[in-house]
Amino acid sequence: MTTGYLYEPLPDIDAGLRLHLNENTGGCSPAVLEAIARLARTDIAAYPVYTNAARACATALGVSPDQLLLTNGLDEGILTVALAFLPRKDAADAVVVEPAYGMFGPSARLAGARVVSATPPPDLGFDLDSVLAALTPATRLVFLATPNNPTGAVVPAAAIRRVAEAMPPGGAVFVDEAYADFEGRSMMGDLERTPNLVIGRTFAKAYGLAGMRIGCVVAQPGVIRQLRGAIAPFSVNVFAAAALEAALADRGHVERYVREVRASRELLYDACDRLGLAYWRSAANYVLVRVGDAAAARAALAARGIHVRDRSSAPGCAGCIRITAGLVEHTRACVAVLEEVVCAKRP
Amino acid sequence: MTTGYLYEPLPDIDAGLRLHLNENTGGCSPAVLEAIARLARTDIAAYPVYTNAARACATALGVSPDQLLLTNGLDEGILTVALAFLPRKDAADAVVVEPAYGMFGPSARLAGARVVSATPPPDLGFDLDSVLAALTPATRLVFLATPNNPTGAVVPAAAIRRVAEAMPPGGAVFVDEAYADFEGRSMMGDLERTPNLVIGRTFAKAYGLAGMRIGCVVAQPGVIRQLRGAIAPFSVNVFAAAALEAALADRGHVERYVREVRASRELLYDACDRLGLAYWRSAANYVLVRVGDAAAARAALAARGIHVRDRSSAPGCAGCIRITAGLVEHTRACVAVLEEVVCAKRP
Repeated sequence: MTTGYLYEPLPDIDAGLRLHLNENTGGCSPAVLEAIARLARTDIAAYPVYTNAARACATALGVSPDQLLLTNGLDEGILTVALAFLPRKDAADAVVVEPAYGMFGPSARLAGARVVSATPPPDLGFDLDSVLAALTPATRLVFLATPNNPTGAVVPAAAIRRVAEAMPPGGAVFVDEAYADFEGRSMMGDLERTPNLVIGRTFAKAYGLAGMRIGCVVAQPGVIRQLRGAIAPFSVNVFAAAALEAALADRGHVERYVREVRASRELLYDACDRLGLAYWRSAANYVLVRVGDAAAARAALAARGIHVRDRSSAPGCAGCIRITAGLVEHTRACVAVLEEVVCAKRP
Repeated sequence: MTTGYLYEPLPDIDAGLRLHLNENTGGCSPAVLEAIARLARTDIAAYPVYTNAARACATALGVSPDQLLLTNGLDEGILTVALAFLPRKDAADAVVVEPAYGMFGPSARLAGARVVSATPPPDLGFDLDSVLAALTPATRLVFLATPNNPTGAVVPAAAIRRVAEAMPPGGAVFVDEAYADFEGRSMMGDLERTPNLVIGRTFAKAYGLAGMRIGCVVAQPGVIRQLRGAIAPFSVNVFAAAALEAALADRGHVERYVREVRASRELLYDACDRLGLAYWRSAANYVLVRVGDAAAARAALAARGIHVRDRSSAPGCAGCIRITAGLVEHTRACVAVLEEVVCAKRP
């Protein structure tokens, strides 16, 4: 498969366990299928109106509707933020806090910005000093994620506040909270007092709507108006809007899945401890594991039907694979194969 | 409703006949609903793979798969073309052939380009000399549509070829064929010999998939690779991909609808002739009509449950509304109300 500007091309996967893209391995809420089945042929033929879905989403996140913009997956949100904040006619810098989600840098470059990497310390934690040192008078955006991808590490709220305070005028801090549902910590409470804070959310992970492409960006109303100038008016599919409303209403489904993910993370930690592999404790639905030869490990796991992601090319992540922690039964299958692969390599 | 960068904000419409966005007023093929019903909760939870849908689409359009890129509606295709061809660090011009679809200019500006308008002659036809005169050494994109929106006029293939020949190196001519299904004429046959021709298609119109957001861009393989560098890898919804395959397979549905549209256009012409209103003969699923006070006419029609589009702010379109020509029964309802409104204004 040839992909767009995101990272390396990923192979199409027909069979096996998908633990490479941090999807919900159990599937979305059954209520989503019911909501979708209610749509008629004329609903499909009309341009989508997603005012109600946006309102439901704002309510679920505890913000007002004018603080929220629904997007075609958070990827579209990231591009929209980049296009809105990076002035293409003047020199602008975007700081990407590494290791990072693969869409930040390419989106900023597509918007015409120079991308400055804030490189991580050896433990891959959030290094406030290095991020502050990366800021210049030309910085218009800082991209960071909490929990971070691929480490799963939470960035302290105080550190994010310091970055927001240090931003030059006209700039913003984009906080990707794609995986926030798995621990519940969020910067949403800072929105009122932080005009240059822009938060991204996706419903691709805990809510299991990756195939639907539905995410949102949350910020003060003035920022949302600015973002609306950089996004097409009909970018969210009518099915995605219906799916979002149904998924948000089924809290129990998400809560059950979050419990599975937490149990799966522990299983992965235990396996790594047994196998003597270094790993990062994660607040998200994946665990980064240092296996040594990541490409070989990925291929060996894939040959046994377990698909994980080779993240060894990310700064600080040499030798690392990232394993999605989904349903416990899937994680058990993964652990069994991981043990086989790791032990086979040893004399 | 606050919209994105497309034209003026449009009101949400709950009731009445939607003849304002050139949608398929009869709905999509029933085969689309059947295809969608086959998707499972785990399909929704996985990132979409649309290789098969892209292949089916290429076959339907008579091109090879490496000549085609599926997009989240053609709007995303237009933005992708703008971002790929307009170099944000250097001065670049984009020529928009007016009157034009509302996304061309804003997409080019979002990409950082200067937008040059090629203004139309009084009959709103395609004025080759004026388009050629608008080209400069900095022109990197020309945006035109055939049939044009809002006039419905076909641009002669020879004129498009002349523009493509006259483009500076590194530039491209974007030909929006969103409405080409209604007459069947296309520039696809020119692709092989025209490396700087980029054609856009949408399945929102004849195929009735507007709510699905599915379109495509077609060009030589090198251009498609360039475009892939300016689009996210997962921008098409899994339901949209399934819907597209099903819709493409049901040729009969499209053919029946095209016949309805043609009959509806004739009904609208006849009504305009009776009412003494100027109009443009259209090759698409809409008719541009000069009513005088377009805002008042739009409001009067809307008050009677018929929603049309006020296009009076488009260059050359003073006093004009655009009426979607869909199912004949819908057009009859529109004509009845149009007669009422026009006659009420007269002494």
